[in-house]
Amino acid sequence: MTVELVNTGSELLFGKILNTHQQWLCRRLTDLGHTVLRQVAVPDTGESIEQSVREALGRADLVITTGGLGPTCDDLTRERIAALLGRRLFPDASVAENIERYFAGRRLTVPARTVVETLVPEGAEVLPNHFGTAPGLAMQVSPNPFRDGGAGSWLVMLPGPPRELRPMFEQSLAPLLKVWFPRAEGFVCRTLKTTGIGESSVEERIGDPLKHLVDAGMELGFCARVGEVDVRFVGRGLGAEAQVAEAEEITRGLVGANVFGAEDDVLESVIVRDFQKSGLTLALAESCTGGHIANRVTNISGASAVLLAGYIPYANASKVRELGVLPATLETYGAVSEETVREMALGARRASGADYAVAVTGIAGPTGGSTEKPVGLVYMAVAGPSEVVVQRKVNAFDRETFKYLTAQQAMMLLWKTAIVA
Amino acid sequence: MTVELVNTGSELLFGKILNTHQQWLCRRLTDLGHTVLRQVAVPDTGESIEQSVREALGRADLVITTGGLGPTCDDLTRERIAALLGRRLFPDASVAENIERYFAGRRLTVPARTVVETLVPEGAEVLPNHFGTAPGLAMQVSPNPFRDGGAGSWLVMLPGPPRELRPMFEQSLAPLLKVWFPRAEGFVCRTLKTTGIGESSVEERIGDPLKHLVDAGMELGFCARVGEVDVRFVGRGLGAEAQVAEAEEITRGLVGANVFGAEDDVLESVIVRDFQKSGLTLALAESCTGGHIANRVTNISGASAVLLAGYIPYANASKVRELGVLPATLETYGAVSEETVREMALGARRASGADYAVAVTGIAGPTGGSTEKPVGLVYMAVAGPSEVVVQRKVNAFDRETFKYLTAQQAMMLLWKTAIVA
Repeated sequence: MTVELVNTGSELLFGKILNTHQQWLCRRLTDLGHTVLRQVAVPDTGESIEQSVREALGRADLVITTGGLGPTCDDLTRERIAALLGRRLFPDASVAENIERYFAGRRLTVPARTVVETLVPEGAEVLPNHFGTAPGLAMQVSPNPFRDGGAGSWLVMLPGPPRELRPMFEQSLAPLLKVWFPRAEGFVCRTLKTTGIGESSVEERIGDPLKHLVDAGMELGFCARVGEVDVRFVGRGLGAEAQVAEAEEITRGLVGANVFGAEDDVLESVIVRDFQKSGLTLALAESCTGGHIANRVTNISGASAVLLAGYIPYANASKVRELGVLPATLETYGAVSEETVREMALGARRASGADYAVAVTGIAGPTGGSTEKPVGLVYMAVAGPSEVVVQRKVNAFDRETFKYLTAQQAMMLLWKTAIVA
Repeated sequence: MTVELVNTGSELLFGKILNTHQQWLCRRLTDLGHTVLRQVAVPDTGESIEQSVREALGRADLVITTGGLGPTCDDLTRERIAALLGRRLFPDASVAENIERYFAGRRLTVPARTVVETLVPEGAEVLPNHFGTAPGLAMQVSPNPFRDGGAGSWLVMLPGPPRELRPMFEQSLAPLLKVWFPRAEGFVCRTLKTTGIGESSVEERIGDPLKHLVDAGMELGFCARVGEVDVRFVGRGLGAEAQVAEAEEITRGLVGANVFGAEDDVLESVIVRDFQKSGLTLALAESCTGGHIANRVTNISGASAVLLAGYIPYANASKVRELGVLPATLETYGAVSEETVREMALGARRASGADYAVAVTGIAGPTGGSTEKPVGLVYMAVAGPSEVVVQRKVNAFDRETFKYLTAQQAMMLLWKTAIVA
């Protein structure tokens, strides 16, 4: 089953925004066992949209468009695709209702222009939008006038905003894909999430031990991100299940200490889940990460049962006042030191009454470094019921990468100390 | 002058990596006054590369490919493009020298496979690679057999790694573009950033008043993000400068209260910049946003001169202890109330000694709502030297969108109170 993506939006071609749909949709489609042949971005002009959709329908079993379903004058996807396929547009009552509900919930009147969002091409299925107003639209193009031999294709239009597109894909489109393209063969995709180990080190350790499975047809893939490496096994056909299970077992045996989860797990979700399960509570004292860890932890539903308090003692006075760091410690060792981070963690634990407290202090840069304390230097500590564990790292990256990577290291230290140990 | 980009790399279509070339190259080309018509990503197969380059040459004055110039078996761009254009490949001595220098500098022997990187198609110009081994290649395709009428095009191949591609673009390609396409006409692109107003409302207000400019050829575009709408004006040719300036003036006149910046501004950068300029300091008390605002503010270099302290009083006890919220207030009005948010803001200002304090308390969901206090309800307050301003919103979205949108509203309230007022 082959797929092509058509991302519409002049802002993509002006370079005003990054096309995150490319990675997200390609990844989800790959996970579901489909092959993405091509991704195209075109401007919001009727001609570009028509031309690119016509070409894609000429090649692929499934064409997914993103964007151009909104109410403004540069939203042309629905209209131009209907014209291309010679389908009339009809107002749909369920869509109109959803739009009314959306605005009523916000105590706003429905803007007149949103009426175009209620239009549905003849024969199209509506994919409800639970996080916005424009629905997705799915239709079969069969026979397909643009394809040699006329073999049918499916055409799906998704809205541009990721927070609307992603849940719509998961809730409505993924189930439809299983109906449209029931795969006869087995397909198993399993991703292990690791941290604290590089891509080439993971590969060096598990490459040979997994060789017999790869030779037998299992795909082994790696995906390196900041502070994280995914290891992915894809098996197809009879025995795929067993192959992938064996690969997972071997991998956990060799790099298990670095595996913190699987599939969509992130460190913060694993921490909230495991702390909740164990009835443990948490406090955070973040100087150089400036609330980055707290923000990620509080993205997880259930965080309120775990996180008691966060402190962002950006100024030294705040480290003394809120966390009880001794002025003498700051003076003697400096704000970025093992001694200070230890007092910050102990102070956050004491002040909040939490079972565990994480503290971080460092130099995010680009300024503020010195010879002994370079930009990127960071101390992190975890204070628990019986001990304080301190770790020193040098994360010499741009500011945001520094914060992200430091958060990964601090959360892994917390998870190992509180849960694994 | 029209451009098409062809990004090669199977990892793009597996969703393993995000195509940052799309945004970076589109943006640089737009800045230089060129129009990117299309961006395509294709896998590392010879057939896909040939097909996509052939199609692009059939439409654009300039085709830029990225990736596939390296030494491994899946690097096919150079070879397949040479074949497509019927050009022979010759080893180039300057490239060989650069490769030798590269490896000698790392005290490594030159791997045998890098010899393919020295091959240059007949008539192509070498763009030196100062950060890697594979050079870029630029050539004129004239007459162009793939284009109706045979009008000539330029074809440029750039290496895939961003740290090689970007300096090569700046140092070698940008100067060549000025020679190949000396522009007679003007090109002006201006983006205003707005918040607190929906896409369709902006258009309703400015559409008619700008109609004469659009009729005269100026492009008007909108890009809606969570809690933000960009308004973009693009002018070309003589008078573009004046057209875009008039559009900006009209727009500021009509929705100026919602315009917080231009081009790459984000609310947090505007706040850090303006607070720093005014010598003002800031404290944050974030319950339901859980450090989201602090994280964004501390992403901006210079934040340490502005932000004194952040508090994440997730538990009620922390609201009392750190911020001095009265237990009676919490009991009588609840944690999510105008009274509590007011005391939080005042408490954060008092405890930190900052000039301004922002406080936020609400129900992020998905659980925790009730009939009088639904999921999405949020109170935000700004305490300053002379007053406390409180705002109530209902942001009924998923958890992360709730936090983002609430942060936008709170930062806009802060900016208006502290800077604009």
